[in-house]
Amino acid sequence: MNTLIVTGGSIDYKFACEYLKKYTWDYVVCADAGMKFCHTAGIQPDLILGDFDSVDDASYTYFKKTCPERMEQFPTHKDETDTELALLRAIAAGADAVTMIGATGTRIDHLLGNIQMLKLALDRGVSCQIVDAHNRIRMVDGQIMLQKSDQFGKFVSLIPFTPEVTGITLKGFAYEVENFTLVSGIARGVSNELEAETASITCQNGILLVIESRD
Amino acid sequence: MNTLIVTGGSIDYKFACEYLKKYTWDYVVCADAGMKFCHTAGIQPDLILGDFDSVDDASYTYFKKTCPERMEQFPTHKDETDTELALLRAIAAGADAVTMIGATGTRIDHLLGNIQMLKLALDRGVSCQIVDAHNRIRMVDGQIMLQKSDQFGKFVSLIPFTPEVTGITLKGFAYEVENFTLVSGIARGVSNELEAETASITCQNGILLVIESRD
Repeated sequence: MNTLIVTGGSIDYKFACEYLKKYTWDYVVCADAGMKFCHTAGIQPDLILGDFDSVDDASYTYFKKTCPERMEQFPTHKDETDTELALLRAIAAGADAVTMIGATGTRIDHLLGNIQMLKLALDRGVSCQIVDAHNRIRMVDGQIMLQKSDQFGKFVSLIPFTPEVTGITLKGFAYEVENFTLVSGIARGVSNELEAETASITCQNGILLVIESRD
Repeated sequence: MNTLIVTGGSIDYKFACEYLKKYTWDYVVCADAGMKFCHTAGIQPDLILGDFDSVDDASYTYFKKTCPERMEQFPTHKDETDTELALLRAIAAGADAVTMIGATGTRIDHLLGNIQMLKLALDRGVSCQIVDAHNRIRMVDGQIMLQKSDQFGKFVSLIPFTPEVTGITLKGFAYEVENFTLVSGIARGVSNELEAETASITCQNGILLVIESRD
């Protein structure tokens, strides 16, 4: 079940509308202020949740009127972030692939909290990615294949999510390595580029963040 | 030695100029495209380094004319990022406190690479922070004190940088915890707020990212 989570960070409307049209979304969860994008873009979410403390009135009123049965309000003082609740609900509903938009923006604590959600998904065997106009962020603890024809951006960067990631082998890249180790505290995997039509990133132990980006 | 590193991400000029005026900078390192901000803001760096492949012509020409002896060019195909080179040079020059501006922006791989630099500094006993108009990001493996009067933003978020951070005790916060454990894959430390005039964050094992932010 290909699931979309729209959460409350910045969303580049033009990019997002074009990106979303390329795929089929079986289930859409909207977290809190993500309502504004859904409202404007004409998306009717299957589930809308959050504490609704950062939503604009027009979007809230619209969804409250058109689909109150799909809205679930949580207390403001709760342990989970709205994105965490959205992801847990998506997984409970049967999501096996999740794309998050609105998960980036000016608040870096929100971004890093959302990147933690990639680990939550990984632990549950769910493929998850964060996408914005400049980046596609995924988390890998085994192997991932990249197609040049389907690339998100020019650059492919690897950041160790665990303190050490061993046995990294890159094939089909401008800078190839075999059985390489990345440790936190260096930035050795930034701005690599694909060369072959099909490239692969493999790691033996640890978890990598794979970020495809464009300027 | 209070050191400033200006690197090539997005810089909010108004914020940065006001922020930089509040402090005395003993040593300024400019990395690559950071030259544009230095040029515009009238900052004469002590050292300018990078591969100079993403600098605008006017800034490059200005510094090449006024202080060529301070410029050090590196090959485009190098292992280190420009920010990493700048930090290593700053530490070698005797920096014990480093502030980075231009370390954030649309490229999330760059941001995460720069966050890795906080670990590089921590390993060398150097206090380091990344600052932009919305965030101050620091890394803690022991204790940090926060003064309400000197707060960067309304929110204080804690993100585990290592897979597990144990013995977390928060004093002076709206949500206080004692001997708490944060693990990656949840977002339990996002958007706390200071209540007391002086607050403290302590952790026993592991490394925390402490992010003060404002919307």
